[in-house]
Amino acid sequence: MNAQEKLKLKLKDNLHVCVGLDADIKKIPSHLHTDKNAIFEFNKKIIDATYKNVCAYKLNFAFYEKEGTWGLEQLLKTKEYIPHEIMTIADAKRGDIGNTSIMYASAVFDEMQFDSVTLNPYMGFDSIVPFQQYKNKLSFILALTSNKSALDFEKLRLNNGKLLFQQIIKKVNSWNTNKNLGIVFGATNEKELEQNISLFNDLFILLPGIGAQGGNLDSILKIFKQNSNNNYFVNISRSIIYSDNTKQFQTVVKKKLQAYNELIFSFLS
Amino acid sequence: MNAQEKLKLKLKDNLHVCVGLDADIKKIPSHLHTDKNAIFEFNKKIIDATYKNVCAYKLNFAFYEKEGTWGLEQLLKTKEYIPHEIMTIADAKRGDIGNTSIMYASAVFDEMQFDSVTLNPYMGFDSIVPFQQYKNKLSFILALTSNKSALDFEKLRLNNGKLLFQQIIKKVNSWNTNKNLGIVFGATNEKELEQNISLFNDLFILLPGIGAQGGNLDSILKIFKQNSNNNYFVNISRSIIYSDNTKQFQTVVKKKLQAYNELIFSFLS
Repeated sequence: MNAQEKLKLKLKDNLHVCVGLDADIKKIPSHLHTDKNAIFEFNKKIIDATYKNVCAYKLNFAFYEKEGTWGLEQLLKTKEYIPHEIMTIADAKRGDIGNTSIMYASAVFDEMQFDSVTLNPYMGFDSIVPFQQYKNKLSFILALTSNKSALDFEKLRLNNGKLLFQQIIKKVNSWNTNKNLGIVFGATNEKELEQNISLFNDLFILLPGIGAQGGNLDSILKIFKQNSNNNYFVNISRSIIYSDNTKQFQTVVKKKLQAYNELIFSFLS
Repeated sequence: MNAQEKLKLKLKDNLHVCVGLDADIKKIPSHLHTDKNAIFEFNKKIIDATYKNVCAYKLNFAFYEKEGTWGLEQLLKTKEYIPHEIMTIADAKRGDIGNTSIMYASAVFDEMQFDSVTLNPYMGFDSIVPFQQYKNKLSFILALTSNKSALDFEKLRLNNGKLLFQQIIKKVNSWNTNKNLGIVFGATNEKELEQNISLFNDLFILLPGIGAQGGNLDSILKIFKQNSNNNYFVNISRSIIYSDNTKQFQTVVKKKLQAYNELIFSFLS
């Protein structure tokens, strides 16, 4: 199954939550700290508790890179442990000149075997092409992010009347000839979501920003429902994976995910 | 010595070439292929042949990430081998929301001990702050890159009359309170360099694009000289490190770098 099929099957089942495996050694339950593969063991338990009810897993590369070669091992072990029917996202925000993007694409898709990746569009199309050429993989391109400083550049007004992020969404649509592109749209930007959802067409939408960052899930769900768009999913990291730090954390994590899913089902049914 | 001091000392000596250690296993001399640390051994020989005459070494992370944990080991060994008086650049084009950028900054500055990093500005100031807070490290922020698709977004006209990359340079200046920021400006953009050099103030300028990408070193040198700006250096990768693939490649590499340096000396003296 390619990335698109994996994701579509889950979305069809109304599974719209991606769990972000942003494992920070300082935050995982203390009884796991002594394990020599502490981060992998933590992720494994989170995956065991959630895999039946997620649409994807997103691994934020920063959290693993911070731990050097050991961190990379934890990342690779985690990637391997994720059931094959679930889409994996290399959240790496990559992007460079073509010659270098070829290497980055090979790193995440060939070497690490991820199903999808997040990309930064600043350098333009030739930095995206090497990823877009993997027809069975998905690439999620930053459009409007969930952080406050999205104001600095992403929301700048261009002399054609568009905001920069709108121009990027327009371009991503034009680049989507292989039907393997998506965008990242921060769930903290409700107003902009409502105003721009008509630009999304058949792009997949990854929405970070729910939970710890303050995005409101109800509002997001309403907007997508009103626009009959089912191509979206929300990433939730901290408010699921760190919802408890006792030996019973798996049960709490499972319930937390269930609560999110029930909220989503109630909106979609 | 902090990153700024390392770089300034070399620039004062008219050393303006940074060697890009973009080691591709497919391109390194074949007699090294059987070594179990082939990439490190190649880099080591390049460093031995060049270290007296460079201002910095730039490691393009994509080339190492492509090789998995082994690649990361080659990167770390190479970093350790570089003499301490020479600035090292983690060419990683990082940038993410604050919480994640903290981790990326810790990865390159604490864990890997690089002196400097390249960053993507798309997400704005809060994605840059975690790097900028390392006062003894330098951060080079993408302004105008050397690739053709720089046209897609970087050169878009804003409704304030500026081009996007000009707005970014303006912002980077305003963020430079710790005097530890620089910009990346592609050497393929001569006209834009000439028109915008007055915006650079005391920012350090990393210029990729000379050599394989077609940037003209003579023109670049003239522009900086005419503007009495000595805060710049050019990165050269492929046209130095792959200038020969026999057992005598070190001699050829040394001569190639020498030729570049002589050209630079002739302009600056």
